[in-house]
Amino acid sequence: MTRDPAAPIGIFDSGLGGLTVAAAVRKLLPSEQIVYLGDTARVPYGTRSPETVQRFALENARFLRKHNIKLLVAACNTVSSVALETLRQAVPEIPVIGVIHSGVRAAIRSNARSVTVIGTRGTIRSGAYERALKEADPGLQVNAIACPLLVPLAEEGILTGPAVKEILHLYLAPLRETPPDALLPGCTHYPLFRAALQEYLPACTQILDCAGACAGEVQELLAEHGMPAHGTGGLRCYVTDSPPGFEEQARRFLGYAPESVEPATL
Amino acid sequence: MTRDPAAPIGIFDSGLGGLTVAAAVRKLLPSEQIVYLGDTARVPYGTRSPETVQRFALENARFLRKHNIKLLVAACNTVSSVALETLRQAVPEIPVIGVIHSGVRAAIRSNARSVTVIGTRGTIRSGAYERALKEADPGLQVNAIACPLLVPLAEEGILTGPAVKEILHLYLAPLRETPPDALLPGCTHYPLFRAALQEYLPACTQILDCAGACAGEVQELLAEHGMPAHGTGGLRCYVTDSPPGFEEQARRFLGYAPESVEPATL
Repeated sequence: MTRDPAAPIGIFDSGLGGLTVAAAVRKLLPSEQIVYLGDTARVPYGTRSPETVQRFALENARFLRKHNIKLLVAACNTVSSVALETLRQAVPEIPVIGVIHSGVRAAIRSNARSVTVIGTRGTIRSGAYERALKEADPGLQVNAIACPLLVPLAEEGILTGPAVKEILHLYLAPLRETPPDALLPGCTHYPLFRAALQEYLPACTQILDCAGACAGEVQELLAEHGMPAHGTGGLRCYVTDSPPGFEEQARRFLGYAPESVEPATL
Repeated sequence: MTRDPAAPIGIFDSGLGGLTVAAAVRKLLPSEQIVYLGDTARVPYGTRSPETVQRFALENARFLRKHNIKLLVAACNTVSSVALETLRQAVPEIPVIGVIHSGVRAAIRSNARSVTVIGTRGTIRSGAYERALKEADPGLQVNAIACPLLVPLAEEGILTGPAVKEILHLYLAPLRETPPDALLPGCTHYPLFRAALQEYLPACTQILDCAGACAGEVQELLAEHGMPAHGTGGLRCYVTDSPPGFEEQARRFLGYAPESVEPATL
């Protein structure tokens, strides 16, 4: 497989959460062009059936393929857990990275002996993280907790304070009693709760940087295929809906204002 | 306009929240057949742009029209606030009821002198309730507060307890200082928070029953058009996605298990 190194990297998510991954890739690989697609008209995916998520994922991949991408990142844990094989079959000519594999690598490299995965209902129900972690290290102690309200909290920009603490308490109270070595935030929205999670959980629990791990995997895969870019990088964003306030949300996930945001019709 | 009285009433919502309205219609008019459509593949609508909501609403109405409905209820506040005229133009042969008009009638009949409307961001941003309330009674004191996190809380079945109280406090703290005569729950999910709202707000604030008011409006409109049914009523539900746990959600909104739930392709 040889593709033009100057071609962009395609990254998509159900909404704007995947911009945390785009930001990490942008930071690690500033020479790369990135085309990001956020399916804001149909966000969230975490509450949909696997069949519906697979259909949406294929439509997103088809849109990005039209941009002649050299690599595809499914920066959505729900997609990574239930639709990665579907994607790989649909675009066999493009390497596809899912965020679950990256998260698992971050966990293994942390040398943790016990890991708690948190994510949306869809991700946790799929069991994908638990299977992948056990496969990577059969001796690892793994449990998983669905935290479905963290996504709407992040989208509202409510990232700290008593409401967040009560919601964390609803889900994570057992971890205060029996803290794991590492917490794996298995949702692209969750990096926004790093401060709240650090405050809520005992200091002995390390919170893994899954977005950074994904960027590292992108870097390795580009090197392996001889495809690193050498020009001036950039980030073009496409969204399937532009509700009021979405620019503010994008800035929150990305850490800065996106250069451009254009409408996408799938 | 004369239509077959035995024809069903069509009711739709972005998801399952509109089942609170279907339950109220079912209770008041047990002889009526109801066809309900929940667009669970694309819920929620409250965070989408008006153009996207209009497109989704039209697709829902077209699906229900195939069931030869005699009356259409947009049991979704977001649709009622931004897409009712679009719907009326698209199905001119069928009377269309929106929940905003019903909510305003409930407010006016309560004799309140001050009303606070709560709803999703989309509903509140549209200003539709405020305009309609002021039009119905220019002397009425009206304010409106967006409470976007109540929908995901309701969908998770978290209806009481400290997390709900903190979320209500985020939004409604000013009402404890200056309580309105009436609270208008401008979202079909909100009836589930009646107990939490009653506990949080001063007793002098009456919480309006908007679903009941909508059922009353359906009854009047059927009488006016000579269309009340006289047979055995029932409720058929269609959903555009069936994620795990949606039956439990349906039961929560409806108050009992639906007789049947079938997949819908729009």
